[in-house]
Amino acid sequence: MSENRPLIVETREHVRYAETDAMGVVHHASYLVYFEEGRSHYMREMGSNYADIEASGYRLPVVEANLRYTEGITYGDVVIIRCWLEESRSRQLTFAYDLLSANTGNKLVSGYTRHIWTEIGGKVTRAPEIWNKLLNSIF
Amino acid sequence: MSENRPLIVETREHVRYAETDAMGVVHHASYLVYFEEGRSHYMREMGSNYADIEASGYRLPVVEANLRYTEGITYGDVVIIRCWLEESRSRQLTFAYDLLSANTGNKLVSGYTRHIWTEIGGKVTRAPEIWNKLLNSIF
Amino acid sequence: MSENRPLIVETREHVRYAETDAMGVVHHASYLVYFEEGRSHYMREMGSNYADIEASGYRLPVVEANLRYTEGITYGDVVIIRCWLEESRSRQLTFAYDLLSANTGNKLVSGYTRHIWTEIGGKVTRAPEIWNKLLNSIF
Amino acid sequence: MSENRPLIVETREHVRYAETDAMGVVHHASYLVYFEEGRSHYMREMGSNYADIEASGYRLPVVEANLRYTEGITYGDVVIIRCWLEESRSRQLTFAYDLLSANTGNKLVSGYTRHIWTEIGGKVTRAPEIWNKLLNSIF
Repeated sequence: MSENRPLIVETREHVRYAETDAMGVVHHASYLVYFEEGRSHYMREMGSNYADIEASGYRLPVVEANLRYTEGITYGDVVIIRCWLEESRSRQLTFAYDLLSANTGNKLVSGYTRHIWTEIGGKVTRAPEIWNKLLNSIF
Repeated sequence: MSENRPLIVETREHVRYAETDAMGVVHHASYLVYFEEGRSHYMREMGSNYADIEASGYRLPVVEANLRYTEGITYGDVVIIRCWLEESRSRQLTFAYDLLSANTGNKLVSGYTRHIWTEIGGKVTRAPEIWNKLLNSIF
Repeated sequence: MSENRPLIVETREHVRYAETDAMGVVHHASYLVYFEEGRSHYMREMGSNYADIEASGYRLPVVEANLRYTEGITYGDVVIIRCWLEESRSRQLTFAYDLLSANTGNKLVSGYTRHIWTEIGGKVTRAPEIWNKLLNSIF
Repeated sequence: MSENRPLIVETREHVRYAETDAMGVVHHASYLVYFEEGRSHYMREMGSNYADIEASGYRLPVVEANLRYTEGITYGDVVIIRCWLEESRSRQLTFAYDLLSANTGNKLVSGYTRHIWTEIGGKVTRAPEIWNKLLNSIF
């Protein structure tokens, strides 16, 4: 990782009407789904893919999530999801996220999700070898 | 089935804030989830359980759904889900639903879902024997 | 509308992990959300926008939905949503949809949603004038 | 609050099939919805109601959420949501949650949500007077 500049992957998602609630803005639980979309895109950009990871017998469940909400976003706007890898250890990964409104540029939510590598059955394991190679190639 | 009176199972669900949308009422896709909850409860009342059905190697995917929306419902109210079995054939089932507001008694949505019996892999099959026995016991 | 060839608008959506269920495929209720995304995109392509429609005091609630499910789709694949306007009357609109897997080209779901034009308070009304102009410009 | 024993309100929710994902367990974003249901029930038990709070011109948006995931839960099981008020200040509230499986008694998730009192327009404000009275009556 040259100069501590992580890869930041940006994903854009139109706010779905189904994601809004009676307050007129996106419901707070939907941001965990935006995080997930940002993370999925990040993995595709790395040359990996969470679908492939599952097919090869690994799972990467969320063990902790944190979200700080600053501002709401309404239908008609687009969410910009910035996602980066905050930490990658042998058995654990942390992704971080900043979400912004495309209309105003304002920050909506920031947060992180912590994950562990497991086998299909749930047993904690080391990161797959392919993952370590991909990590080395991007940093 | 004596006198063509079907078993009608009633389920009550508090409207969840997450289910509302920016129109201030429950989003139209959430009613398929209410249908599913009504159907799950119906099966438990029969003495069956969709979890057991899956555990015994069967699946009951939806092949058609129809919903007619009459009135919206807001957070703070309770949805009454009335579910009954409209038709049960060797390879196919149809459930029907009427949804009402507990506050007003007004009808919100009515509709049906059609299902087929399949094996885990997706191959269409006959209803499990246990299902036919349960059907005979309730009708 | 020259030669009965309607405008067909195509939208692509990565399957979200959150949209899958324990059968391993997208949950059947999520297709109503895909329909909605296809419809939103269709309106933007027309030069309209459902957000603008709401801002101008109109609502376009769903009064009927029908879905026929042919095949499931898994995480890792992309849903192709084809949406067109099946019928536009003074107080009512019908959109139709075909959804396909980008991986296999197979049809997943087809269906329609019927909508009525209402004022904010819910009173049925005629289509906004701007909508009729846009319709004339595309057909 | 006598002896620092807070009111703990317990809510039970059947796992909905729609809440599961391709890992076979409830998707991690659904727990924020369970938190919300637990919180809604807590308020009803206090003699309040979030619907009434909104009707009286207040909002209580989430400004922070934290979730620690220990174990998954499958369809067929029931989630026990234990919710209590961790802190109530003039402009801010914190609810905490423990979620358990009814089948195993094991802890699934624990976490908290922090909220601020605002007016409809989003301006931060003091808790409504009625809320303070209810708080005094339960503690």
